[in-house]
Amino acid sequence: MSAVIAHLRSRREAHLEQLAAYLRLPSISTLNLGLKEAADHLAGLMREAGVEARILPTKGHPVVYGEAGGPAGAPVLLVYGHYDVQPAEMAEGWASPPFEPQVREGRLYARGAGDNKGQHFAQLKAVEAFKATGTPLPVTVKFLIEGEEEMGSTHLREFVVANRDLLKADIACSSDGSLHPSRRPTLALGCRGLLYVELIAQGAGKDLHSGSYGGAVESPFWRLMRAVQALRGPDGRVRVPGFYGAVRPLGRADREALAGIPDPASELRAALGEGAERIGEAATFYARTQTEPNLNICGFQGGYSGEGMKTVIPGAVRAKVDFRLVVDQDPHKLFEDVRAFLAREGFGDIEVRKLATFEPSKTPADHPLIQKVIRAIGWEGQKPVVYPNFGGSVPDTVFTKDLGVPSVWLPLANADSNSHAPDENLRLDVFHMGCELAARVMEGLGR
Amino acid sequence: MSAVIAHLRSRREAHLEQLAAYLRLPSISTLNLGLKEAADHLAGLMREAGVEARILPTKGHPVVYGEAGGPAGAPVLLVYGHYDVQPAEMAEGWASPPFEPQVREGRLYARGAGDNKGQHFAQLKAVEAFKATGTPLPVTVKFLIEGEEEMGSTHLREFVVANRDLLKADIACSSDGSLHPSRRPTLALGCRGLLYVELIAQGAGKDLHSGSYGGAVESPFWRLMRAVQALRGPDGRVRVPGFYGAVRPLGRADREALAGIPDPASELRAALGEGAERIGEAATFYARTQTEPNLNICGFQGGYSGEGMKTVIPGAVRAKVDFRLVVDQDPHKLFEDVRAFLAREGFGDIEVRKLATFEPSKTPADHPLIQKVIRAIGWEGQKPVVYPNFGGSVPDTVFTKDLGVPSVWLPLANADSNSHAPDENLRLDVFHMGCELAARVMEGLGR
Repeated sequence: MSAVIAHLRSRREAHLEQLAAYLRLPSISTLNLGLKEAADHLAGLMREAGVEARILPTKGHPVVYGEAGGPAGAPVLLVYGHYDVQPAEMAEGWASPPFEPQVREGRLYARGAGDNKGQHFAQLKAVEAFKATGTPLPVTVKFLIEGEEEMGSTHLREFVVANRDLLKADIACSSDGSLHPSRRPTLALGCRGLLYVELIAQGAGKDLHSGSYGGAVESPFWRLMRAVQALRGPDGRVRVPGFYGAVRPLGRADREALAGIPDPASELRAALGEGAERIGEAATFYARTQTEPNLNICGFQGGYSGEGMKTVIPGAVRAKVDFRLVVDQDPHKLFEDVRAFLAREGFGDIEVRKLATFEPSKTPADHPLIQKVIRAIGWEGQKPVVYPNFGGSVPDTVFTKDLGVPSVWLPLANADSNSHAPDENLRLDVFHMGCELAARVMEGLGR
Repeated sequence: MSAVIAHLRSRREAHLEQLAAYLRLPSISTLNLGLKEAADHLAGLMREAGVEARILPTKGHPVVYGEAGGPAGAPVLLVYGHYDVQPAEMAEGWASPPFEPQVREGRLYARGAGDNKGQHFAQLKAVEAFKATGTPLPVTVKFLIEGEEEMGSTHLREFVVANRDLLKADIACSSDGSLHPSRRPTLALGCRGLLYVELIAQGAGKDLHSGSYGGAVESPFWRLMRAVQALRGPDGRVRVPGFYGAVRPLGRADREALAGIPDPASELRAALGEGAERIGEAATFYARTQTEPNLNICGFQGGYSGEGMKTVIPGAVRAKVDFRLVVDQDPHKLFEDVRAFLAREGFGDIEVRKLATFEPSKTPADHPLIQKVIRAIGWEGQKPVVYPNFGGSVPDTVFTKDLGVPSVWLPLANADSNSHAPDENLRLDVFHMGCELAARVMEGLGR
């Protein structure tokens, strides 16, 4: 194993150059741009690393599948990632062109650096290091790198279900999301689910001038506000009956993990800087965002929502709200519950539309393979940070439900990597640590 | 007078061509486009009509001032209009280019046809008809045609106050707005005022991902909704103390005028078609929109308000609301009252910004000169429709307050003229009627 780590350290410059070449490809799934080129490139990188690679079709953008065999009887590790990236334009405020990678002050700046090319690239380099040094790969590694994550992993579940045998594994260890702000090795054991709905209140059907019609025609926002407020009590709790009944109590391992997360204010400070404490309660940050459900108002649509003023009675208006869910809340059942609840509360005139769902997912922290991963990634004497959950929603149920294996997320990007935003970046120290962490996980699982 | 009417009828084709030439000029004040050309053109039209014309500077776009003298001692009539128009682009859904006037099925289609070039052009043609037929002009007519109405009449009051002597008159008879849907000659004797405010609720100061922060950081929309709702009771009445105390009771003449407006459902039907009754109470339409104040929600700003979905906790959010006011409600006082009220109700954290004000204005229906105008415009045996007020806001207080004269609005565009919208048009029968109505008013005032 020390040869593997030594190899990874000796190749840092070369890895950075290879990653930069991969980041130069603008593979933007929502614009259907450059997906084939990036998939071909990634398959080439896999082959160079000693991984058998295939590009497999889906009903959308293809999956790049790779496999590197370990000893007979060794555990099978499934690694997930995505080669598609968010759109990016200089005009959004980038300091350097998003598809011309540039290193500044210890960070590699490019769209996709953190989300997600840099992360699965690190996993791939770990396999390569075993191969290059003649060290027997301790596990069989399977790579499932999709091209549609940034558009909602549209065909991922269908692909996984149709390829159950190919993807058969003992554990999934995916890399996405970001490290704890302390940059200690971080694991997450699930994700919150999502139900995104629109509530629609009809008015006159077309926008009217508030001078000519105000007083005779009512802004439908008055009614919409009442409907939105009916969903939540003054204590902030969701009022839909049964909503909390499905929430599974936290196990002891998760409670301990939560208690062990260092510096709970750091995530708020990383996002908000000074004044973070004004906004949210720091001590409970991780418990609230990872293990509790929530109802949020993303915005309202209709009438006038630009700068300045326009006098208008909106013809129809929409509220955009998202529920974040934890196990075992079912977004599809909740959607029906929300409709029924609003109708019973006298809001039968409010149309409710389901725009997106994501199922919550959870792997128990005390699963033996998870314990192996946790032990494997101790780094320079520090205990890893274990998140019971990602607060956000990732396609984790394809592992925990469709493939029926424990799933751990090993984020390999810094917390301030600006994913989905201008100046996306990957800290070089985090990138190099990521390659080594991935190798340690492979070694630890095979032990 | 019959010579004047006969002249106007004989010149219908020529007037239409002249108006089309005027409409070809895209004089868009908010884009600072073509104002000088349109002002010069209008001054030329005035001179052709026998009116002394001058282009007078303001701190913004100039005023075109015209004067045609009547007999010594005759009343002085001030006519207001505006030569600037709203922006217009084919892509908004025009059937023909907005600045290439086209006649189809008895209507002249062009931006500005109804709002407002066609309307003050009709007034000008009336003066021309007296001059051309050698009929003594029964009144002195002064034209005040501004170039900034579509950007809020920014410098009109300042101009009027600075030119009080020049503009000295006995009555103002302005043409803007639209006829009753029956197309009977219509008068309005004032307008509602406006207070447009933004209520701003601060959140984290920047948008956050609802997955990572939902539960720890609260959407400021929850608080903003409560602040907006505090302004209005469940009965729809504004809760700001003193709001209704300033409302002047309707006089007998106005109450009779309201009762005499035919077919009160027609305005709702014109706007909404079938199902209009579902939306608003038809019988009280004119009373509510002309003589009662109102609070409307135009829209919300912040977070995500586009099509589809984005999961975001907004960093700050705004509600855009407009109060429509009647005499003697003072928008500036109301603004202070709203601030104080919200603070007292526990919403001191909500910032309140004044984006625009318009003062309500009113001329009594029983003023002798107004009665002369009403008598003058009987048309083909029909009584005119008298609106106590426009529901919308026009710069009427420059006449009623700054110049201290009675003011009547004589709209000369059809109710379905699509002002501010694609396919703006002026019915030819309304245009020709408008020229004659303007002449009748001049004759009636001079009698």
